[in-house]
Amino acid sequence: MSELLDKVNSPADIQRLSVPQLTELAGEIRNFILNSVSKTGGHLASNLGVVELTLALHCVFNFKSDKLLWDVGHQCYTHKIITGRKDKFANLRHVGGISGFPNPAESEYDQFAVGHAGTAIATAIGMALGNYHQNQDDKIVAVVGDASIVNGTSFEALNNLGLIKRQLLIVLNDNSMAIDATVGAMAKYFSRVRLSQTYEDLRKTTNNILEHMPVIGKSVEEALERIKRSIRMVLPASQMFESLHIPYFGPVDGHDIGSLIQLFEALAELNHPAILHVYTKKGKGFQPADKGPTKFHSTGPFKINGETVETTSSPGKRTFTKSFGEYLTALAEKDKRIIALTSAMCDGTGLMHFREKFAERFYDVGIAEGAAVDVAAGLARDGLRPFVCIYSTFLQRSFDQIFQEVALQNLPVVFCIDRAGFVGPDGPTHHGLMDIGFMRMMPNMVLTAPANDIEMKLALEFALGHEGPVVIRYPKDFVPPDSFIKATNKRPYKLGTSVTVKRSKNSRIVIVGYGSILTEAIKAAEILAREKIPVDVINGRFAAPVDPKILSPLKQGKSIITVEDHNVACGFGSAVIEMAAAKNYPLGHIRLLGAPKTFVGHDSRDAQLLQTGINADRIAIAAKEMLAKKTRK
Amino acid sequence: MSELLDKVNSPADIQRLSVPQLTELAGEIRNFILNSVSKTGGHLASNLGVVELTLALHCVFNFKSDKLLWDVGHQCYTHKIITGRKDKFANLRHVGGISGFPNPAESEYDQFAVGHAGTAIATAIGMALGNYHQNQDDKIVAVVGDASIVNGTSFEALNNLGLIKRQLLIVLNDNSMAIDATVGAMAKYFSRVRLSQTYEDLRKTTNNILEHMPVIGKSVEEALERIKRSIRMVLPASQMFESLHIPYFGPVDGHDIGSLIQLFEALAELNHPAILHVYTKKGKGFQPADKGPTKFHSTGPFKINGETVETTSSPGKRTFTKSFGEYLTALAEKDKRIIALTSAMCDGTGLMHFREKFAERFYDVGIAEGAAVDVAAGLARDGLRPFVCIYSTFLQRSFDQIFQEVALQNLPVVFCIDRAGFVGPDGPTHHGLMDIGFMRMMPNMVLTAPANDIEMKLALEFALGHEGPVVIRYPKDFVPPDSFIKATNKRPYKLGTSVTVKRSKNSRIVIVGYGSILTEAIKAAEILAREKIPVDVINGRFAAPVDPKILSPLKQGKSIITVEDHNVACGFGSAVIEMAAAKNYPLGHIRLLGAPKTFVGHDSRDAQLLQTGINADRIAIAAKEMLAKKTRK
Repeated sequence: MSELLDKVNSPADIQRLSVPQLTELAGEIRNFILNSVSKTGGHLASNLGVVELTLALHCVFNFKSDKLLWDVGHQCYTHKIITGRKDKFANLRHVGGISGFPNPAESEYDQFAVGHAGTAIATAIGMALGNYHQNQDDKIVAVVGDASIVNGTSFEALNNLGLIKRQLLIVLNDNSMAIDATVGAMAKYFSRVRLSQTYEDLRKTTNNILEHMPVIGKSVEEALERIKRSIRMVLPASQMFESLHIPYFGPVDGHDIGSLIQLFEALAELNHPAILHVYTKKGKGFQPADKGPTKFHSTGPFKINGETVETTSSPGKRTFTKSFGEYLTALAEKDKRIIALTSAMCDGTGLMHFREKFAERFYDVGIAEGAAVDVAAGLARDGLRPFVCIYSTFLQRSFDQIFQEVALQNLPVVFCIDRAGFVGPDGPTHHGLMDIGFMRMMPNMVLTAPANDIEMKLALEFALGHEGPVVIRYPKDFVPPDSFIKATNKRPYKLGTSVTVKRSKNSRIVIVGYGSILTEAIKAAEILAREKIPVDVINGRFAAPVDPKILSPLKQGKSIITVEDHNVACGFGSAVIEMAAAKNYPLGHIRLLGAPKTFVGHDSRDAQLLQTGINADRIAIAAKEMLAKKTRK
Repeated sequence: MSELLDKVNSPADIQRLSVPQLTELAGEIRNFILNSVSKTGGHLASNLGVVELTLALHCVFNFKSDKLLWDVGHQCYTHKIITGRKDKFANLRHVGGISGFPNPAESEYDQFAVGHAGTAIATAIGMALGNYHQNQDDKIVAVVGDASIVNGTSFEALNNLGLIKRQLLIVLNDNSMAIDATVGAMAKYFSRVRLSQTYEDLRKTTNNILEHMPVIGKSVEEALERIKRSIRMVLPASQMFESLHIPYFGPVDGHDIGSLIQLFEALAELNHPAILHVYTKKGKGFQPADKGPTKFHSTGPFKINGETVETTSSPGKRTFTKSFGEYLTALAEKDKRIIALTSAMCDGTGLMHFREKFAERFYDVGIAEGAAVDVAAGLARDGLRPFVCIYSTFLQRSFDQIFQEVALQNLPVVFCIDRAGFVGPDGPTHHGLMDIGFMRMMPNMVLTAPANDIEMKLALEFALGHEGPVVIRYPKDFVPPDSFIKATNKRPYKLGTSVTVKRSKNSRIVIVGYGSILTEAIKAAEILAREKIPVDVINGRFAAPVDPKILSPLKQGKSIITVEDHNVACGFGSAVIEMAAAKNYPLGHIRLLGAPKTFVGHDSRDAQLLQTGINADRIAIAAKEMLAKKTRK
C-alpha cells in the first residue's frame, strides 16, 4: 500500500518521480498521516489538505538551501514525512518523538519553531533581506492559510513587502477554514471569488499564468502592468493585493500536482515578491475530516471503522473548558450584559453551547487577538460585560491592548484564559506560562485562578460583580474529582482573599497552590500525612492582589511553598515574595515551585508537571527538603 | 486676535457659528495652539493639521452622547480647546494640567485614554456593538491617520467591520506623514491616489458624494453598488476598502470646513459603516512645522521670531538616545552584519545618523512593531545582527513575536529599548514600566541596562558578541555627567555579572541600581555619607541572568535595597528576590524600590521619580528606614 512512500527518505527521492507517481504518493502519504494520527493524535484535517502542495514545493525547490516557512506550522506533516522524519511519526508529539510543528532542532529543512499564526510573511521578509545583504540567491517560500493572512502581523508584513527587490513567493493556501470557519471581510471576499469559479476556470487561470508569466528581470511595476494587460484572470481576487502593489496569481487548484510544479517552476524565476493563491480542501481524502474539519483540526487518537470514526478519548470526563462554557452560558441567561468574544477558537474555548444559545451575543473576530480585546474594551465602555476567551499563549498577542484599552481605563473586561500552564503535546509554542506575569504588572488588573469546577462558577460570578478587569486562568485539563473540593472552596470569591483548605496540627509547612494545581498540593499533603508530616494547604485564589494572610504562617515560624502552573519568574510565588519584601518578612523560608527558565518540550501534561517539579510527588519532596534544611539550622 | 475663541466654551458655542466664522475660528485656534505649545511643549504639527476637521465634527455631531474616538490621540488639542479645557492649556502635560492625550477623567467628551496607534477602529466597533445591544443610536466616529491605519490592529478591525449593521464613520486623516514619512505599500498607494488628484478633483468628489449619497436605510451591499454605479469618484482609492467590503468616500479636502460639515451631515445618516478619506496638511499654518513636521511632531518649548523658530531646549546635553545612536553607528562601521530596524521612530530612537550613513542597512516598517520583530528574526536566522529600536511602551505590541520568533529560536536579535521607565509629560500611555517583566520571563533572553554613556557602548558591544537575544534598556533622559562614571563602569560587560561602584567601610546597607537610575543610587550614597551612614552601591547590569553575587552581602548581615525605573512587580528587584528565595536567603532584608501598582500621570520625569520614591533623596530615606528597623530588632 505504500510502495512509493517506502522509498522516500529525502526530497531528492520525490524529485525523481513522475506526476502520476507523485499523485499516487500523495494517496500513500494521506493513508500514512491518517494511520499515524489515529494512533498518536495530532492535527489532521489541515495536513490532509496540503499533501500535493507540499510535494510540488519540494519537487521544485531545494529546501536545504532554499527556505520554506510555514505559517502556524501545524500543517507540516507531509513536509516532515519527506524530509527524513517518516519513521518518527509513531512518537509524534510524544516525548522522544517529533514535534507537531516545524522545529529547526529536528531538521535543517525547518526554519522556525512556530505555532502562532501570522508570522511567516514577516520572517520571510527578514530572510529575504538577509539573503540580499549577503548576496545569496536562495529562494524563499512562505505558505500562509487564508485564516492567517487576516492576522494583523500578516497585514503589517504585506504592507512591507515592498522592502524586497528579489524573489519571495507567498503561497496563499485557501481552504476557507481557519480552525473554525474563517470570519471577516477578507474571508467573505475570498469566498465570493471562490463561488465565482468553476473547476474549469482554475485550469484556465493556470494556463494563463504559464503562458503569460512576466519575463525574468522585470520590476514589480512592469510585472503588475503585464499581468493586468495580458492575463485575463479573475480580477476581483487580485484587487486586494494589487492595491498593496503585490503581484498576484491565481486562484489555481491546490491538488493538481502537475500544474503546481509548473507554476512553482515559473514563479521561482521572478525577481520580485508574488502571491500564488491556491484552493485546497481541508481534510481531503478522509470523509469524516472532510465533513467535520473543526472536529479533526486537532484530535486525540481515534479508530476508523470503514467510513465511521470512533474517538478513543474519554468523553465523560469534565474539563475546565467545559466547566467554563457551561457556567458562562448559565450566567448569561441571568445577565443580558454578558457578551462572549473569541479569536477563531469557539470550540477550543468551550463556547459552542454559548454560541448556539446566544448567537447574537457571541463574536468571533478571527485570528485577531489584538482587535478582540479592543472590541471588548469598546463594549465595556458602553456598559456591557465582555468575556474575552483566548488561550494564554495567544493572548500574548494582545498584551498592549490589554494594557492600554482595558487596564488603563479600568474597564470591566473579563479575560477567560484557557490553556494556561502546560498544554502537553503541542509543546513550547503553546504552553501558557507567562500570563500571570504580564497581567499582574498592570494596575487595576485582578488575577484569579479557579482550582476546580465549583470555583470556576464562583470565579465567574466574582468577575461579573467586579467593576474592573478580571483574569480567570485555567489549564487544558480535567477538573479534579469532587473529593478534592473542600468546604472552603465553596465560599464565594472575595477580592484578594485566599482560603485554607487543609489545616494540620503542628504543621511546619504551608503549601499555597494557585489554580488547578491546588489539587497536586492537596495530594502532596496527603502523601506527607501518610509519612506523619503535617502540612497546611492554602488555596491562593488571587495572584493580584495577593492575600497578605498567606504570609502570616511565617510569624509562627512556618515555611511556605508556593506552587503554580506558570513560570516561577514573575508568577504567583513571585508576587507573594514581593509582598513579603514590602512587609519586611523573613523570606528565606519561602520556596517557589513552577516552570523553570527553559523551554519544555512536547510530552503529556502530566509528564511536564512531573518534569518541572509541580506534581504531588515532587511537591512532597520539596516540602521534606525544606524541613530538613530547617532542622539543620 | 481671538474674539471668537474667547466665546467658545463648549461645542454648542461653535454650532452657532457660520462657515466664514468657523474658518476665522480655525485661525484663532491655530494661534492658540502655537502659543500654548511654544510655552509648554507638546504635539504641534498633527494638531495644526486637524483644526477644521475637528470643528466640522463638533458642528455636526453631539459628542456628549455621540462617541468620538481618536486614534493615537495626540491630535486632540482642538477637541480639548472647544470642550471646555481651553484655560488648562497653560499647564498642558504638566502636573495639575491636562494630558496631551484624550482622557475620560478630564471630560465626558473623551472616551479612551490613548496614545498607541491602531486601536480606534476596534474600540469603535466595540462601542457600536454596545449601542446595538442596548438599542441606543448614538453616532460613532473614529478619526484614524494614514500611518495608524496600516497598523495590524487597524487591519484586524477593518476586517471585522462587517460585524456592524449600523452607522460607524471612520475618518481617514491622510497627511502622508506618520511621525516620520509614512512607509509601506499602503502609503505608496495613498500617495499615488494623492498625486493623481488636483484640488479641483477634491471639490468634484465632494459634490459627487453629496449629490449621490446612498439613500438612508440601504444595506452595505446596496450602498456599495450605488457608489460604484452613480458616483464617478476616483476609483483607485476605493479599491482597497471595497475589497474589504467597506463603503468608501473621498478623497476630499480636510481644510474646507463648509464641505466637511455637509459631508458629515450626510454620512451621519448612513446605517452602515463607511470611510471618509480626507486630505490634511500636518503643521498647516505654521511654516516651520509645515516644512519640518518630524521636528515639530512632539516638541519642547520654543520661541517664534517672525518666520524662524528657536528651540529653547538644551541641545548641548547628551541623551541616552544620542549615545545609543552614535555607538551603534560606530559599531556598524566595523561589523557589516549590523542592521537597524525601527517602527516609524527613526528620529525618536536616535537612528537618523545611522540611516544617513547606512541607508541600505536601515529599515523602518511603519507603526508595525510585530512585523518589525519578525523581520529581525528572519534577518538573524540568516546570520545577520538586527538591532530592533522601539520604545518600551510600543514594544508591548510585539511581546508574542519576541517570545515565539526570537526567544524560542534563541536568535541574536538585540532589542534597544528607548523610553524605558518614566517618560515625563507623555504620561501613563507612554511610560515604559513593564519591559523587564515581560522580557525576563522568556528563556534565553538576556537583559541589560547601561547606567551611563560608557556603559551604553559596553552594552552594545556585549550584545553584539552574545549568541542569543539581548535587551538593552535606557530612559528618555540625559546621560549622567562623567563624575558619576566609576572605574568599574568601564569594565566590559560579562554575562550575568554586576560591578560594585562604591564600597564603604562598615556599611550595613547595599544599594543595587539597575540602569540609569544607578546615578540616583550613587547620589543617595553621597547624601548618606554626609550623614555618616556608610553604604555600598552595586551596578546590577543584568536583570537576566541576575548576578548571584548581589546577594552575598546578606551573608555579612547587610541589607539590600534594589532601585529601578520600572514596576516593582516583575522587575529587577523581583528577579533578585526570586533568586534569593531559590537560594534560601533571608529576604526580609531586601527592599524593592520602583514604580507602584498605580498609573502615574503626566509630569516632569524628575517629579515622577520623586513621586514614586526612586530619586536620590527618597532612596536615602528608604535606607535610613531600613537601618532603623534593623536597629529595633
